[in-house]
Amino acid sequence: MVSSAIRELLKVTEQEGMISFAGGLPSPDCFPAGAIAEATEKVLATSAGKALQYGPTPGLMPLRELCAELLIGRGVRVGGDQVLITSGSQQALDVIGKLMIDPGDTVLVEEPTYLGALQAWRPYRPNCVTLPMDDDGLVVEALAERLANGLHAKFLYVVPNFQNPTGVSMSAARREALLDVAAQYGLPILEDDPYGELRYTGSTIPPLAALDIARHSQLRHVVYLSTFSKLLAPGLRVGWVTGPAWMLKRIEQVKEGLDLHTGTLSQAIAYEACRDGLLDRHIPVIRAVYGERRQVMLDALAASMPTGVRWTQPEGGMFLWCTLPDDVSSAEVFDRAIAQHVAFVPGTPFYANGGGDNTMRLNFSHSTPDQLRTGVARLAAAIA
Amino acid sequence: MVSSAIRELLKVTEQEGMISFAGGLPSPDCFPAGAIAEATEKVLATSAGKALQYGPTPGLMPLRELCAELLIGRGVRVGGDQVLITSGSQQALDVIGKLMIDPGDTVLVEEPTYLGALQAWRPYRPNCVTLPMDDDGLVVEALAERLANGLHAKFLYVVPNFQNPTGVSMSAARREALLDVAAQYGLPILEDDPYGELRYTGSTIPPLAALDIARHSQLRHVVYLSTFSKLLAPGLRVGWVTGPAWMLKRIEQVKEGLDLHTGTLSQAIAYEACRDGLLDRHIPVIRAVYGERRQVMLDALAASMPTGVRWTQPEGGMFLWCTLPDDVSSAEVFDRAIAQHVAFVPGTPFYANGGGDNTMRLNFSHSTPDQLRTGVARLAAAIA
Repeated sequence: MVSSAIRELLKVTEQEGMISFAGGLPSPDCFPAGAIAEATEKVLATSAGKALQYGPTPGLMPLRELCAELLIGRGVRVGGDQVLITSGSQQALDVIGKLMIDPGDTVLVEEPTYLGALQAWRPYRPNCVTLPMDDDGLVVEALAERLANGLHAKFLYVVPNFQNPTGVSMSAARREALLDVAAQYGLPILEDDPYGELRYTGSTIPPLAALDIARHSQLRHVVYLSTFSKLLAPGLRVGWVTGPAWMLKRIEQVKEGLDLHTGTLSQAIAYEACRDGLLDRHIPVIRAVYGERRQVMLDALAASMPTGVRWTQPEGGMFLWCTLPDDVSSAEVFDRAIAQHVAFVPGTPFYANGGGDNTMRLNFSHSTPDQLRTGVARLAAAIA
Repeated sequence: MVSSAIRELLKVTEQEGMISFAGGLPSPDCFPAGAIAEATEKVLATSAGKALQYGPTPGLMPLRELCAELLIGRGVRVGGDQVLITSGSQQALDVIGKLMIDPGDTVLVEEPTYLGALQAWRPYRPNCVTLPMDDDGLVVEALAERLANGLHAKFLYVVPNFQNPTGVSMSAARREALLDVAAQYGLPILEDDPYGELRYTGSTIPPLAALDIARHSQLRHVVYLSTFSKLLAPGLRVGWVTGPAWMLKRIEQVKEGLDLHTGTLSQAIAYEACRDGLLDRHIPVIRAVYGERRQVMLDALAASMPTGVRWTQPEGGMFLWCTLPDDVSSAEVFDRAIAQHVAFVPGTPFYANGGGDNTMRLNFSHSTPDQLRTGVARLAAAIA
């Protein structure tokens, strides 16, 4: 196991005066701190004995029911008993790796893909097979071809909405095609959806889990992960998972050995804060702030990037993805950028099997519009 | 992987009118709810942006330093940079299993031992070799003999203070002897100490970690785990670990893949609540309450248990251990006890390789003195 390149790198980016597009952080200005403080006060005044005690491994039932309501709002019709609370989505990634991956097993991932998933699974020694993406997300035809040629995989991992790291979303047509392929080959899909609610332009596309339920009246092929980290606050470490019943039972068993249960106080706070519809009021606030920042970054890139640099046009989320000319190394650009006091993440760690030396991930949620403009100008100068 | 026998069983014990000695719960009367509420209010008023944000994998440095002070108070002289925060001690057990155990590796455990450790490690497929205990804890001579005969083990897991499940403590002489053996054979020791501060009678015995440091000026053989769960509140899910530097580095790397970091808000609350010496004032309160309950249970057992039933005399912690006559099954007693509205945990799940059919674990921290008296009388009747 190796320490995450990103977290090592983040240490560099904490220098005074640095503008950082490197982290994956929500903006603290968008934390509903007042509502969380109020909720916490109420929880500790009315049910401290329960909120501070050990709790059930699957999570507090009122919170599970609240998550089910959120899921239903996304078209995923499940009940609270089909939702398990996890210590962030990261824990769900670890649990599923532990359950599903024996050494040498093939796991299918997008190229590039979320680094934290690769890191969670590395100890289980999977054989990661990468699948190409384009502006419509995962190229499902390429997946179908691999499976038709006899490739056997334990599961496919996808981030269909505003993917980390690229910001790209999978089109509705691709999602339907992907479910066809999953049904044909009995391929389990792990759908990670931390950013789905953070759409700033374009129309909502139903998650794979919603399409799976529409076809089978229950989750058959899709295990779906989400989290409060980007809607409420990541410091609570409260995520959730739903999926086929047999899978949830197994996840619960594994989770018990990991941490007994997710923090009871955090769960109680999340529930109390959200029970009166806070998210309906708060998500539009986040969308407005991040949507502006996204536009500022896109405009600044268009205004200043040298010819030959391309970037994605995310409709939501927190990241966009820059591709430099083939012969330009983003690791070299990184050193020059740091000297100019601007940071990003070179793209290579997001490639399960290497590559992407000319790519970089830019975060737009954590910097102010002024920082975004100044930072992009510095970055353009470093690249030039 | 199988669901924990205990947690399945706890569902039965939630019936109306049940007196339960089954759980491993601290008493909610002993949570410093007021201090926690005050700390939380302050954290969210002064540093919400940080307390609700993602945080560093090793934990918040002020809390790590506070844990180092607690450790120094126990004779374990380490700095904050040698402490990692975990999501309860349970997470440290999982991490260490993941780091150390390849399928078939021998892990040495006490017989009986903490069920949660067995459960955390089962997915890594260790060969658990059990070592006998007596009233002075682990029989170190038996360990030495096994090692002299060529047994190779990845590590030894011990709970030297008021062990879960037996309540027995390892004597000072045994601890010294154990460190001799560890040095002779290069055997790593995993010392789990959730209850060390909860002593109600007798004198403090230094943890193995303290003896290890006294010998080598640094932690060489011992990885030491502890937690706020029994001192503050388990619902926060904040534990900590210290050990040799190379080990801590590895633990940090693994933990990152598990949940990125332990909940920032929980950590900030634990720090803010404890920074002014709350534990110095609060631990005596817990000791007074649990100490009385321990005595009530011991007196009630002495007054009512049929001949042939033996039990341990713990000097601290939350549990004691009952041994029935050889031909009496505690599983059968369990059914009769439930019918009498009293619950306990049959001892078998604490045996890594089976056995202990005539044993039972009794928790005395979570019931009131009246419940303890009534419950023991019912239990005695069920056994009789």
